[in-house]
Amino acid sequence: MHPELAAAPATRHAPTPVPSSFRARFPALADPAVVYLDSAATTQKPDTVIAAVSDYHREHTANAGRGTYGWATTLSARIAAVRTRAADFLGARHSDEIVFTSGATAALGAIAHSWGLAALTDGDEILYNPADHAANVLPWHHLRDTLARFGRRIVLRPYRSTATGEADIEDILAQVGPRTRLITTSHLHHVYGGLTTLEELRGRIDPEILLCFDCSQSGGHLPVDVTALGADFAVFAGHKMFGSPGTGLLYCHRRVHATLRPFLPGGNSGVRISDAGLVGTGMPELLEGGTHNIPGILSLAPAFDLLDELDRRTVAEHNRVLTLRLIDGLREVAGLDFRPGPAYAACAVGYGIVSFTLDTISAADLGFVLADAGFLVRTGAHCVPSAEAEQGSVRVSTHLYNTLDEIDRFVACVSGIAAPGR
Amino acid sequence: MHPELAAAPATRHAPTPVPSSFRARFPALADPAVVYLDSAATTQKPDTVIAAVSDYHREHTANAGRGTYGWATTLSARIAAVRTRAADFLGARHSDEIVFTSGATAALGAIAHSWGLAALTDGDEILYNPADHAANVLPWHHLRDTLARFGRRIVLRPYRSTATGEADIEDILAQVGPRTRLITTSHLHHVYGGLTTLEELRGRIDPEILLCFDCSQSGGHLPVDVTALGADFAVFAGHKMFGSPGTGLLYCHRRVHATLRPFLPGGNSGVRISDAGLVGTGMPELLEGGTHNIPGILSLAPAFDLLDELDRRTVAEHNRVLTLRLIDGLREVAGLDFRPGPAYAACAVGYGIVSFTLDTISAADLGFVLADAGFLVRTGAHCVPSAEAEQGSVRVSTHLYNTLDEIDRFVACVSGIAAPGR
Repeated sequence: MHPELAAAPATRHAPTPVPSSFRARFPALADPAVVYLDSAATTQKPDTVIAAVSDYHREHTANAGRGTYGWATTLSARIAAVRTRAADFLGARHSDEIVFTSGATAALGAIAHSWGLAALTDGDEILYNPADHAANVLPWHHLRDTLARFGRRIVLRPYRSTATGEADIEDILAQVGPRTRLITTSHLHHVYGGLTTLEELRGRIDPEILLCFDCSQSGGHLPVDVTALGADFAVFAGHKMFGSPGTGLLYCHRRVHATLRPFLPGGNSGVRISDAGLVGTGMPELLEGGTHNIPGILSLAPAFDLLDELDRRTVAEHNRVLTLRLIDGLREVAGLDFRPGPAYAACAVGYGIVSFTLDTISAADLGFVLADAGFLVRTGAHCVPSAEAEQGSVRVSTHLYNTLDEIDRFVACVSGIAAPGR
Repeated sequence: MHPELAAAPATRHAPTPVPSSFRARFPALADPAVVYLDSAATTQKPDTVIAAVSDYHREHTANAGRGTYGWATTLSARIAAVRTRAADFLGARHSDEIVFTSGATAALGAIAHSWGLAALTDGDEILYNPADHAANVLPWHHLRDTLARFGRRIVLRPYRSTATGEADIEDILAQVGPRTRLITTSHLHHVYGGLTTLEELRGRIDPEILLCFDCSQSGGHLPVDVTALGADFAVFAGHKMFGSPGTGLLYCHRRVHATLRPFLPGGNSGVRISDAGLVGTGMPELLEGGTHNIPGILSLAPAFDLLDELDRRTVAEHNRVLTLRLIDGLREVAGLDFRPGPAYAACAVGYGIVSFTLDTISAADLGFVLADAGFLVRTGAHCVPSAEAEQGSVRVSTHLYNTLDEIDRFVACVSGIAAPGR
């Protein structure tokens, strides 16, 4: 359980502290007949984010880091300010630990490419969860393949998830060995909705072992602090934190900087050409190159503003209340099986993600029926690349614009589908 | 000279056929005191592009390729339609030859990573232009470094530019050898404004040698047809073709598909895990993964619409007329030296880019003075990584919203700076 949340009062089904007026800031949710329960795929966008993107295109279009005229220099300064803001928002000690990427997938790929390809040698091991999102599975397989072509064999050691949908810390600990170089995990699992406390391992394992957190789901939901997590790498998806798509954040602790090689170098990259090859001239530019997704980066500032206005503990509590109501409601539905997650937890936890199946209808068909009734949920294997690890299910994911009334209507709809006529 | 343009009438300084009403579609250019001459850095955005991005965030926010509800499936269909449209727009025969990337830099990096890292062996050679943009120089250096760490030594052979700012075809031809695997060039040089006709080499070199065109500058200016170019790879920057930043297009001819390995794999990538490693399941998904820059991709449709409405031959002619007027005007300025480019051409060519220096003032200072007078130009080394290749200069770049009057005012301003009081 997340230590900061453990301190929160265990109010079950208490009125949400998120002002109901917040919902009105999301234009796409103006129609009350549409119940958006797919925020784990992408969040809806508030007016301020829409305006930031539009204003860039309408008034401030320029390229950053290049021109010397006002439009361009102002833009460079604004992007630098977002970087500083992001560092503060995510608990990074230094803004040079924050890399802008094109998304969480590219951020994890950057770790594999810029760290893994250079740092790993024959016999090194990476511990990972095969039930994680493809973005935190495939880059490591791709890295292993690439190294193998050059005669270097690294080992990918899969570890288990628990019934509550968290990475199994004890299984990880049992598998850690002298060749373990990296342990990677989803911080909040995108299907199970379990929160992994990999940081518990600090002090129990070799401090040289690097920890990597995929915070795509936790970033906008919980008060994530990368320093408190003891993260060496952490990745975030802007579009799952109310920002515009095509923007990710990669946190790289300063202690790994010297081990990194360039990532997709181009204009404004932190490299220079020498006789001995490319020489890095500094982070975060070492891992950046070319024209940024400028409107996407600018959209992060109002996204962070929105979350700061509420405080992420309030957002977390809101999602916890919705999740518990959802679990309690679905528990009564005949023939419903929860996938791993907080439904199996001994205490009242919940982080806005619940997945389940019904025995009378396939997940895909259930998704269509629910969509017809106005409930937008995700169905399928949820980007888990191993078919055994994740059969099709329905995933419900909430955020600050969802209400208890929506949850109740959703539960009633699922009940009706599960037992028609009853 | 571009063959399609050679057929255009050689009207010098003829009235532009671009309707003056077009400029009003670009909100950022509403102030007539601002003369935007930095389109080679990024183009201004028309109302339709701004609306496409805004509408996505406001009305259609969903993730693509994932959900089964209408918001998501409609979006997936729209993205597929943009891909087909892009293939048609760029002259690709098949839509699976079009990969969406986060930009031209990432597209060139994808070639280096997904083709080069897998396909190149000891002694293979890449021919490149060290005076090209960093995005078409650094990826090859990075590739060489990476391969060298694994004991594979490839050779980067630099070739020359001509006085008119084109890649020197004869120098390339002289350097082609039995180990040449790839020749890469900027199609339209980002500083010199010369158009390279690498396609002339087809029939004169081994057909197995791959040709790569960086069309970042030509894409929105000329009627680029990748099939006519005989390109194996070609890259385009959405934000330099009136689209939103953070979106690029990578063309990969089908004949190279079997040689490609994954690029930044994640959710919805075209790969599956097997005992033998990742297995590709199809293009273009092999080189895509994770959530796309959805608004950026959607912005390409109205961007292409705008260019199709005018016809890119009209756009090319408009830029040619502006470029010739600019060159003629600047030729009279005392102490002005043109960088390589159409200023030295024997015939009346011009593609919207002209770079120069003044002997009485540094390029950087000249840029500041020009900005104060309302002329937004680019100064510096223009992302050319080799300092010897490109000392600082002022670059003027035009597009369809610029006018002959703006060019005349710009020339008058430069003249005044060069010879104050005269």
